[in-house]
Amino acid sequence: MPKSLLILQPEGKRLKVGVGKTILDIAQEAGVDIQSVCAGKGICGKCRVVVRAGSEYLSQASRVERVVFSDDELEKGYRLACRAIIGKSGTITVEVPPESRAGLQRLLVSGVETRVEFEPAVRKYMVEVRRPTLEEPRSDMDRLLDALSRRREIRIERICLGALRRAPHAVRSAEPNVTITVWNNKEVISVEAGNKQTKLYGFAVDVGTTKLAGYLVDLDLGTIVAAVSSTNPQIPYGEDVISRMSFIMKDLKGLSQLQTLIIKEVDKLILEACKHAHVTPDQVHEVTVVGNSAMHHIFFGIYPGYVALAPYPTVLRDPIDVKASELGVDINPCGNIHGLPLIAGFVGADAVADILATQMYALDDIAMMIDIGTNTEIVIGDKNKLTACSCASGPAFEGAHIKNGMRAATGAIERVYIDPDTFQVGYETVDNAKPSGVCGSGVVDAVAEMLMRRIIDSSGRIKTELGLPNIRVKDRIPELVLAGASETGSGNEIVITQEDIRQIQLAKAAIYSGISILMRRLGISAGDISKIFLAGAFGTYVDPQSARVIGMYPDIPLSRVQFVGNAAGSGARMALMSIEMRRKADEISKKVDYIELGADPNFQNDFLNATYLPHKNIDLFPSVRRLLQN
Amino acid sequence: MPKSLLILQPEGKRLKVGVGKTILDIAQEAGVDIQSVCAGKGICGKCRVVVRAGSEYLSQASRVERVVFSDDELEKGYRLACRAIIGKSGTITVEVPPESRAGLQRLLVSGVETRVEFEPAVRKYMVEVRRPTLEEPRSDMDRLLDALSRRREIRIERICLGALRRAPHAVRSAEPNVTITVWNNKEVISVEAGNKQTKLYGFAVDVGTTKLAGYLVDLDLGTIVAAVSSTNPQIPYGEDVISRMSFIMKDLKGLSQLQTLIIKEVDKLILEACKHAHVTPDQVHEVTVVGNSAMHHIFFGIYPGYVALAPYPTVLRDPIDVKASELGVDINPCGNIHGLPLIAGFVGADAVADILATQMYALDDIAMMIDIGTNTEIVIGDKNKLTACSCASGPAFEGAHIKNGMRAATGAIERVYIDPDTFQVGYETVDNAKPSGVCGSGVVDAVAEMLMRRIIDSSGRIKTELGLPNIRVKDRIPELVLAGASETGSGNEIVITQEDIRQIQLAKAAIYSGISILMRRLGISAGDISKIFLAGAFGTYVDPQSARVIGMYPDIPLSRVQFVGNAAGSGARMALMSIEMRRKADEISKKVDYIELGADPNFQNDFLNATYLPHKNIDLFPSVRRLLQN
Repeated sequence: MPKSLLILQPEGKRLKVGVGKTILDIAQEAGVDIQSVCAGKGICGKCRVVVRAGSEYLSQASRVERVVFSDDELEKGYRLACRAIIGKSGTITVEVPPESRAGLQRLLVSGVETRVEFEPAVRKYMVEVRRPTLEEPRSDMDRLLDALSRRREIRIERICLGALRRAPHAVRSAEPNVTITVWNNKEVISVEAGNKQTKLYGFAVDVGTTKLAGYLVDLDLGTIVAAVSSTNPQIPYGEDVISRMSFIMKDLKGLSQLQTLIIKEVDKLILEACKHAHVTPDQVHEVTVVGNSAMHHIFFGIYPGYVALAPYPTVLRDPIDVKASELGVDINPCGNIHGLPLIAGFVGADAVADILATQMYALDDIAMMIDIGTNTEIVIGDKNKLTACSCASGPAFEGAHIKNGMRAATGAIERVYIDPDTFQVGYETVDNAKPSGVCGSGVVDAVAEMLMRRIIDSSGRIKTELGLPNIRVKDRIPELVLAGASETGSGNEIVITQEDIRQIQLAKAAIYSGISILMRRLGISAGDISKIFLAGAFGTYVDPQSARVIGMYPDIPLSRVQFVGNAAGSGARMALMSIEMRRKADEISKKVDYIELGADPNFQNDFLNATYLPHKNIDLFPSVRRLLQN
Repeated sequence: MPKSLLILQPEGKRLKVGVGKTILDIAQEAGVDIQSVCAGKGICGKCRVVVRAGSEYLSQASRVERVVFSDDELEKGYRLACRAIIGKSGTITVEVPPESRAGLQRLLVSGVETRVEFEPAVRKYMVEVRRPTLEEPRSDMDRLLDALSRRREIRIERICLGALRRAPHAVRSAEPNVTITVWNNKEVISVEAGNKQTKLYGFAVDVGTTKLAGYLVDLDLGTIVAAVSSTNPQIPYGEDVISRMSFIMKDLKGLSQLQTLIIKEVDKLILEACKHAHVTPDQVHEVTVVGNSAMHHIFFGIYPGYVALAPYPTVLRDPIDVKASELGVDINPCGNIHGLPLIAGFVGADAVADILATQMYALDDIAMMIDIGTNTEIVIGDKNKLTACSCASGPAFEGAHIKNGMRAATGAIERVYIDPDTFQVGYETVDNAKPSGVCGSGVVDAVAEMLMRRIIDSSGRIKTELGLPNIRVKDRIPELVLAGASETGSGNEIVITQEDIRQIQLAKAAIYSGISILMRRLGISAGDISKIFLAGAFGTYVDPQSARVIGMYPDIPLSRVQFVGNAAGSGARMALMSIEMRRKADEISKKVDYIELGADPNFQNDFLNATYLPHKNIDLFPSVRRLLQN
C-alpha cells in the first residue's frame, strides 16, 4: 500500500502514513500535541494547522473549514486537522501553530523568549592584587581598583559599603586572586576572595496583583536556571489594586504592611529558586521588578494612594535603583533592585515589559498588545509611535464575579463547546481533573459557543424560549448547565448564568471600547493591525477564536494573533540580561502616549456598543457575521 | 600730666595712659587678656606682645627680653609686656598675638577659621509644581524635576528612596510650593512641602581617639550655629588606637561594638547641637567626618585590623559617601555621610583636614604642620609637594603615663615657671581652680623651666646634688614638687618625677626624629621653614617657647609658630561648606608622599639624639643655647 510522508513542524517529526487518515488522527497517534475539544467532530474549530507544502495530497477544504477560516487564511494553508485527510501519496509538511497546542500554551506562561544581546548590568572580574609594601603601603581598594583598571575600561564612582567591608579579608584570603563585582560599570558591589567569576546570578520578578512569577538567571551564562511562582500575599487586603490602594489610604500603616508582605514573598521566591539551582541568595546580585503602578509603588514603599484618584498620576515614572539592603530584599546586600519604568497610573512597568518582550517598539507595521487582567493594558503602535490606554476590565476573566468561576487551576473547565445538532455541552478541564468550576477561558468559550449556536442573541440574552435541554431558569435567572452534579468533583452543578454572560460582556466591552478609542485616535482600522499580542495568563489560555467571536478584539485573521504568555516576566528578564533593554525601557516609558479613556467624549457610547456580541455594529466583525450566517 | 594713647590690637582698645606703667599692667587693668605666669616678674617670658607702632615711646628692650627674643623677633617689635614701660607721651600700637592669650587659646580649640568659597554639597531649591491633568497625568517626580530643571543646571541621576517616599505628600500639602534638596547637583535627597529653603544644616565631626568635636553649620548661611564635644566612648576598650584595634582583632563582634558606640555618640552630639540651635536632626542633610585611619574605619564599620600590621595599609584611601540610614546616623535618612580621604594607615583623614585648614597645600614657602596626639602627624611642604609621616609620640602630652598627669581639665596645672633666684615654683591651673594634677602643657613647661634653671642637664637627669628646695628623692626617684599638699584640692602633692621627664623626652624625641627624617629627605633645614602650624588640643595649650626649649620642633622664631587648634575639625567644616574643598582633600590625599619612619635607616639614631634636651647637637637650637648661656 502506498505511503505518504507527513512532516509535522516545528517538531520536525517525519511519519509514514497511509491514505485516508486525518492529520489529527496521525498527530495524536504520534504524540504530537494538537487541541481538539470536540474530539475530531469538526465542530470546535480548535485543531487549526497550516499546510506548508503538499496540500495537493490532502482532501479539499470542507464546508466547515471554509466557514471557520477567512479566504486569506485558506490561501495561507490553514486547515482543521480533523478535516484534512491524506488523499494521495506524497510528502506533506504541516505546521502546528502555538494556539493549537494544549500543553504548550501552559508552558507559554513563562513568556515569550526574545533574544537580547547579553549584557547584564552586573559583571564579575577576577584580578590579581599586589601586596602592599613599606615603600608603597597603598590601600586595599587602591590596589584592587588599580588591578581592575588594568583590565577594563571601567570607571568606578562608588564602592558599596558592604563590599568595602568585605575587601580587607577578601584581598588576603586567596592571594593574589580577588573577584570584583561591578554594577553598571561604575559601582563595586562585591569583593570576594579567589576566582568567583561564575557565581553570578540575577532574579527577574513580575509582581502581579494576583500572582508572582520569578526567574533566576545565571548572569555569567545568560540562562534561566529556575522559574518559580506564587500567589500575591496581599490578596486578603483586596482582590484588585483599587481595593488595596483603598486599604492603604485608610490605614497609616497599610503601606508598610503590604510592602513587607510582598518583599517577604519575593524573598521566598528567590530562596526557592536558589535552592532549586543550588545557589546561595548572596550570589544573586540584581533583581529586576515589573508590576502595575500600584504593585510597583507598594513594592518600593511609595504611597500609591494618588494613583487611585483622577488624574491618576504615579509618584515616579523613571526607572529606579535601590540597594537590596535598603529594601530588605535578601540577596547580596549591595545588590541592586531595579524597578522598570512606568507609563501612567494604570499602565505600569508590566506594560513597559510587555512592550519590551514583544519588541513592538521596533516593528515596521502596526501591532496591538493586550495584557488582559483585572486591569487590561492596551498598546497600539509601531516603531514610530506607541499609544497606550488602560481598561477596567474587572476580574471576570480571572473567574471572579462568575457564579461558578475559579482560577485556571486543576479542575477548572477551560474549554467548552456545544454540539450544533444536539446542543450537548462538551468541555475540557485543567489537568483533566473532575470539573470543579469554570475559569475565564471556559466562560469565554461558553459565551462564544452560545452565540454561535444562537442560544443567546447579540444582546447576550439567553433565549429560554427555545426550550433547549441544557438551558433552564433557576431563581428567575436563565442559565446554561455546563456540567451536571454527577460529573463534578463536588457534586454541585456548574452553570453559566445570564449574569455571568453580562459580566463577560462588560469585561470585553471595556477592552474593546479601549481599543476603539485608541484606533480612532490613531486613525486606523482592524485591517491596519498586522499583529495582536495577547499577554497575561488569561490571554494565554483563552481561545483566540472564541475571544474574537465575542468581540474582545478586532476581527483580524487568527494567524495574526500571537500568544506571548507572561510577557511582563519576559520583559523583566530581558532587562535583567541587558542594560540596552533598560535604556530601551526608559525610552519606551517616555515615548508612549497615554490616553485616559475616561476623558474621551466617545467613551460611554463606545462602551455601550461594545457590550453587544460581538458588537452593535456587526460589520466590524465580518468573520463572526459569516459564522453566524452559516 | 601728659598722657599716651595705647592701642591694643586686635581688639582695637584705645587707652589713655600715664608714663611709667608697663603694657601688662595697663592691659590687665583694661581687661585685655595677656598671659603672665610669673605675675610680671620678667621670668616666664609668656607675655609676648608685638609693638606695631610707637616703639620710641617705650622703654628700651631689657636684658631678659634680649635673651628671650631672637634678633629677628626684636627687630619685628617683640617685647615682653611686663618689661615694656611707657616712657614718653605718644601713640603706641601693640598687638597681643594669639600665643600670649590665656583665654583665647582655649577658644582656639574650635580651630582655625579659613575662609572658603561657600559651596556646600547640599542645596535647597523652592519650586512651583504644576498640577497633573487628565490630558497630562505626569508623575509627581516628573513634575518636580521639570520645575527644578527650569531653575538650574542640575542633572538629577538619582532620587533617594526616602525622598521619593515623601514626594507624593509634599507636592500636595502646600501647593504649588515644594522644596527639593539636592546633593552634589545630582541626587534628590529630600522633598518637602512649602518653602523650606532656610532649613538646611550640616554637621562636621572630628572623631578623635580621645575626644569628639562637632560643629553644626547652617548650610543656607554658612555659619556655625553650635559647637559640641564629648569624650570618645570607646576609651574603655583601649586608650589608644592600637589597643582598640587589638580588641577588634581579638573579638569578632568587636568592630560592630565599637562602631555602634561611636555612631551613637555622634548621634548624641548632633542632637545636642540641634537642640542648642533649635533645629531638628531631620534638617541636617550632611555630615562630614574626619579622624585617624583607625577611627575612620571603625566609624564606617570597616575592619581596621590590617592598619595595625606592617606595612599598615588602609582598606580605603578615597573619600567615602554613605547614606545616613545605612550607617544609622540620626539625621535626615537620605542625608549623606562624607568621610574625608586618608593618606596612610597612620596619617588619616584628620591629617588631610589639617592640611586643608592650614592651606599649606597652597603656600609658596615651606611650612610644617604638627598635629600632636598619642599619634603625631607631621606634614612638611608647600604648594608643589607635601610629605607626611606619623610618630608614635604616646600619651604623655595628654597627661597619661605621667605620675600626677591628667587631661587639661579644671584644676590641671597648665603653666609652670621656676624663679631663677629662689627656685620657687609658680603655676597656673585651668579655670584657676585648686591644682589637682598636671596636664601636658604643664609638664612641658616644667621640663623646660628645669632645663633653663639648670635643675636638669641635657640628658634630662635631675641634679639632686644641687640641694634645691623643691627637689627631693622619694622612693629612690628624684622629683620636683610643683604644688605642696596644702595647696592642692586633694591634699596630695603634685610632682614631676625623673620618670615623667623621661616620658616627655621620649615623646618629644619621637616627634623631633620624625621631623628630622622628613627634613633630611626633603633636603631642608630649620631656616627653610617659614611656618609651623601646631594643631590639636595639646598643640594649642602648650607654650611654644617651652616646646622649643625642650626641642620638640626645630628652632625657628616663635613668630613663625601658629596655633591652629582643632584644625582637623576646621578641615571637616571646610569640607562641609565647600565641595571645592572636598576635591582639594581628594587631591591632597593622593598627592601627599607618605614616609614610613620605621623603614628609614637613620630612625634609631635620630631618635636617640632627639631624646636629649633640646638635642644632642645643641647647634641645632641656637636660641636655646643662648638662653642656657645666660
